[in-house]
Amino acid sequence: MSETQMPSARTRVIREADRGVYDRESVYRILDEGFLCHVGFVVDGQPFVIPTSFGRSDARLYIHGSAASRMLRQLKAAVPVCITVTLLDGLVLARSAFNHSMNYRSVVILGKATLVDDPVEKLRALRILSEHILPGRWADSRQPNERELKATSVLRVPIEEFSAKVRVGPPIDDEEDYSFATWAGVVPLEMVAGKPIDDRRLLAGTDVPKYARQYTRQRSSRIT
Amino acid sequence: MSETQMPSARTRVIREADRGVYDRESVYRILDEGFLCHVGFVVDGQPFVIPTSFGRSDARLYIHGSAASRMLRQLKAAVPVCITVTLLDGLVLARSAFNHSMNYRSVVILGKATLVDDPVEKLRALRILSEHILPGRWADSRQPNERELKATSVLRVPIEEFSAKVRVGPPIDDEEDYSFATWAGVVPLEMVAGKPIDDRRLLAGTDVPKYARQYTRQRSSRIT
Repeated sequence: MSETQMPSARTRVIREADRGVYDRESVYRILDEGFLCHVGFVVDGQPFVIPTSFGRSDARLYIHGSAASRMLRQLKAAVPVCITVTLLDGLVLARSAFNHSMNYRSVVILGKATLVDDPVEKLRALRILSEHILPGRWADSRQPNERELKATSVLRVPIEEFSAKVRVGPPIDDEEDYSFATWAGVVPLEMVAGKPIDDRRLLAGTDVPKYARQYTRQRSSRIT
Repeated sequence: MSETQMPSARTRVIREADRGVYDRESVYRILDEGFLCHVGFVVDGQPFVIPTSFGRSDARLYIHGSAASRMLRQLKAAVPVCITVTLLDGLVLARSAFNHSMNYRSVVILGKATLVDDPVEKLRALRILSEHILPGRWADSRQPNERELKATSVLRVPIEEFSAKVRVGPPIDDEEDYSFATWAGVVPLEMVAGKPIDDRRLLAGTDVPKYARQYTRQRSSRIT
């Protein structure tokens, strides 16, 4: 796979350029902690942004969906897409309204989505998607049959043109505002899993598997 | 404000049409529980999807940002945008890999963003944005000065062409799969706030305000 020099003119972070992150390993860490992306595509000049899950295998990002969906119908045509993954880490409360911010880590990938035709890559991509969201689940599930595979489209997006933007740490106030009498600091935010809810039709004696009991997205050390 | 009949051909939910929600009050409840949106816009045929915060006042959605940012520079030209707000409520574990899903509530708004020129509406929009994210914070902050107002752009997007898509409840398996021996159910997901982190340069005796101590986005009853 060819390696474009990052950032490209289209992915360079313009505003708050010091928050731009362009190395592949940092971008992969953000992608691997997330599992929800927002896919942007254009139909007749109108952008659409649709949330969906994703998986990653090296420099390939996979998304999937019903072959009947608006998104999949459009993206099969190898049109330009933007895939954005955002992890929200906290509210940043400065003394001035103006300097309020958020701590976040986001990745933007520009490229074209390609339909995965090869049945071996397709099944592997579906397993990668599943394991990306909930490691351990795939092997515990009833595997896809021919009809289901046919009803599902898988798209591959190369992770070639990308950038990340990251804000961490405390508020940064104007020097003269540090004497302004208000609380300032960070309210950390995190997505957490609650207690799993049994399906009503569980077979007797079926326990919640460990991977569903202790679900977390923390794949790497996290800074607030 | 004229009321278009929802859904339009562009916002009608195609796949899993029973998950489509088109009434304004339900859409507002989702918008009011969220505060992060993903904004889609097009530059030279390439879609971009950028995360940013938003606020709402009746049928107006406001976003803001640095006048120097790529997004704001583009959107000032009243180009078509898509604003998507996604609340993730849980992982839905079915017996079959194919029937795995997520519980979520998402809103898609199509329209054109307009730069807010009027200084009264602009200041009010900034307050609405702030209060949407953290009610009570605006009055406790040092208010924006002329220079800061000039450096900030505010955009208004009318909530006219929209739809929501909502999935709630347990997994739905094919009838013959209910005898497949695996755990099935829902792993609830929620964004929660941690303990606020004091800024190092707080004035002595400044306590964490109540609005930052007990932060929650639960604006309405939530179903998993």
